Amino acid sequence: MANPMPHVVIVGAGFGGLRAARALANAPVRVTLVDRKNYHLFQPLLYQVAVAGLSPDDIAQPVRKIFRDQKNLEFCLSEVKQIRLEDKVLVTAMQEIPYDYLILSVGGETNYFGIDSVAHNALALKDLEDAVLIRNQILRMFELASLEKDPERSKAMRTFVIVGGGPTGVESAGAISELIRLVLAHDYPNLNFNDVRVILVEATQSLLPGMPEGLTQYTADKLWEKHVEIHFGSAVIGFDGSQVYFKGGEILPACTLIWAAGVRPVSTLDTLGVEQGRLGRVVVEETLQVPGHPEAFVIGDAALLTGPDGRPLPMVAPVAMQQGALAARNILRLIAGKPLQPFVYKDPGSLATIGRNAAVAHLGRWQFTGFLAWVLWLVVHLIQLIGFRNRLVVLINWAWDYFFYDRPLRLILPE
Amino acid sequence: MANPMPHVVIVGAGFGGLRAARALANAPVRVTLVDRKNYHLFQPLLYQVAVAGLSPDDIAQPVRKIFRDQKNLEFCLSEVKQIRLEDKVLVTAMQEIPYDYLILSVGGETNYFGIDSVAHNALALKDLEDAVLIRNQILRMFELASLEKDPERSKAMRTFVIVGGGPTGVESAGAISELIRLVLAHDYPNLNFNDVRVILVEATQSLLPGMPEGLTQYTADKLWEKHVEIHFGSAVIGFDGSQVYFKGGEILPACTLIWAAGVRPVSTLDTLGVEQGRLGRVVVEETLQVPGHPEAFVIGDAALLTGPDGRPLPMVAPVAMQQGALAARNILRLIAGKPLQPFVYKDPGSLATIGRNAAVAHLGRWQFTGFLAWVLWLVVHLIQLIGFRNRLVVLINWAWDYFFYDRPLRLILPE
Repeated sequence: MANPMPHVVIVGAGFGGLRAARALANAPVRVTLVDRKNYHLFQPLLYQVAVAGLSPDDIAQPVRKIFRDQKNLEFCLSEVKQIRLEDKVLVTAMQEIPYDYLILSVGGETNYFGIDSVAHNALALKDLEDAVLIRNQILRMFELASLEKDPERSKAMRTFVIVGGGPTGVESAGAISELIRLVLAHDYPNLNFNDVRVILVEATQSLLPGMPEGLTQYTADKLWEKHVEIHFGSAVIGFDGSQVYFKGGEILPACTLIWAAGVRPVSTLDTLGVEQGRLGRVVVEETLQVPGHPEAFVIGDAALLTGPDGRPLPMVAPVAMQQGALAARNILRLIAGKPLQPFVYKDPGSLATIGRNAAVAHLGRWQFTGFLAWVLWLVVHLIQLIGFRNRLVVLINWAWDYFFYDRPLRLILPE
Repeated sequence: MANPMPHVVIVGAGFGGLRAARALANAPVRVTLVDRKNYHLFQPLLYQVAVAGLSPDDIAQPVRKIFRDQKNLEFCLSEVKQIRLEDKVLVTAMQEIPYDYLILSVGGETNYFGIDSVAHNALALKDLEDAVLIRNQILRMFELASLEKDPERSKAMRTFVIVGGGPTGVESAGAISELIRLVLAHDYPNLNFNDVRVILVEATQSLLPGMPEGLTQYTADKLWEKHVEIHFGSAVIGFDGSQVYFKGGEILPACTLIWAAGVRPVSTLDTLGVEQGRLGRVVVEETLQVPGHPEAFVIGDAALLTGPDGRPLPMVAPVAMQQGALAARNILRLIAGKPLQPFVYKDPGSLATIGRNAAVAHLGRWQFTGFLAWVLWLVVHLIQLIGFRNRLVVLINWAWDYFFYDRPLRLILPE
């Protein structure tokens, strides 16, 4: 029996795809949401899993649970292999899914800028698996260092290099330094913690691009206070697992390199056969449609759209969410025969935390730092997290960490 | 500078090793605790991780955290390769550790009784990794079944066979059936749940060996109520990943086999070169010493000691814990030149849960079932769990499950 309702297929259960799916809840369409994971990941807190502050389960929510009450939605756990725009068919590992309307919200992956040695030996921070690997690596390095006889080798094990001065790099560097100084120092009474190094490498002269100068300066000062060395104007060109190679010839013995220097859209987009811009993002119209394919929308990290300042919109969650809502609305307008609306980004501001009691907030004309910004950061992230149980457990873990200077989750888990 | 204090090396941070290490806290010895994991695992709740009720982090505690305040103890994360009793040396992957006194508490591993096809294709339930694999497998089977066109293949994906009617098999079978009927049934509105099968296979005619008949009958009745089929007097002789082969020729199409039919001590014991009894357990004296090596003690699953009823003491946590305490005391008596004490097992009774509101308790002359036994089971396990944070989070997860019929942790995690 043919289903008379138009079929909307959404690829990706990230921030953008989720928002689009919800916006179609009561619409006269049937929705299929496709993702290769069975959970939605709250990426802004991923670095806290890497530093033993939260459990992987705390920041993920099963997609089927999120949409249990949305009767017009079906979930499909599959990896998308190819998108045939001409035939309006999505090809997954298990089947071909025909669609009437498509929203591509495939998100991003770590961009190593073609540096193979870094891609092979560095750790990234994009998915739960990455976060568990980083947690295991940090803890394992201290275990190995506690048994290591060679002082130079032991020092390399206790040197942690983070590349990229954006929010992920800043938040990770601060949290790793606090994990080491406030928690692990008590776990290894026989180990020297004076020569432990946490190094944040940034190619430009400033952290947190896009933030006002007062806030970036505060961020750098606070990181130094927390024993994070910042190397400005410095670029990593290689890493073999025991040495980091810098542009200019410097070589630093270190066993851990965390790469937070860039994101690019996933390569599935290359199968579309449409115009791609910088980093492979799909050039979309103001309505988020793919030129020549009015039924196909691309949103979030995967879409290239220019903002009013003439620069591409950033690869951040608020852009993806607002675009998800608009793509859903525009599909309903297409069905109803109404004219589509262009995307106008409303920047909600940005927040970044540096560690205990220290964060920066930039909300429109408002800028502030310190304890107030930190509390705001906590509240905003707690509210945005999906699921009451997750919120409660995250709150308990944060309170535990704050009051007892303890991260109870420092387990080296199976990989 | 030589350390004048005797060196006690404890291998294994399970229930027995932990108890022994704590018993030596204020003694004039230095202690090295060796384990290949950096955490102590609360095994009795492992099956709850497998059924998406708890997070792996909830039932594990870092060893260094447990012993942070015990100044005479050092932890060593290493795998033991060999024990040279004659030289009093422990050989790990990284170093050789000489000892004055040794407590071997190496625990058990899954016993497949030489059935290679089962060892290769079945899932076990001994470590956190196993539990995450089972959780992923159950969830993945329903995702695949929801896409499967062939009804026979779909049915095999929704058939779950658990082998072994001991506490692990009983608790797993009940909890898996509840996960499927109470939670997953709502996640897959288009999937048929009438022909989902959860089958518990037991070679004898009774579940929970050692329990009084009234309790084993109650257990079987409750499992049937919870839609668990019990196949008594049935033995699995092979499994290829899609079919289970039974003694007698029966073949059952099923994609999931969970093997909870037996435990044997880890094979490290074979390097000792001493007398081993059934399953390879080391025959020890009443004082828990290895015959001919008065400085070496073996406890828990690894030790073979006969109880007053003429049968070997069971491989359960209370035996390991009481033996850990005695081994520590006997070492201090050896040092003080006092006569050693023999091991006398005080059976604290046994508890097993079947599911919501249903459990059995056998405490000395007392036997009871139902809600009261279930609450006792919850309280006892919550108290024994190490760490206040873990207790709090486990309690929240249990309450969530109980009141909302929901298991929020049904995530297919990276393996």
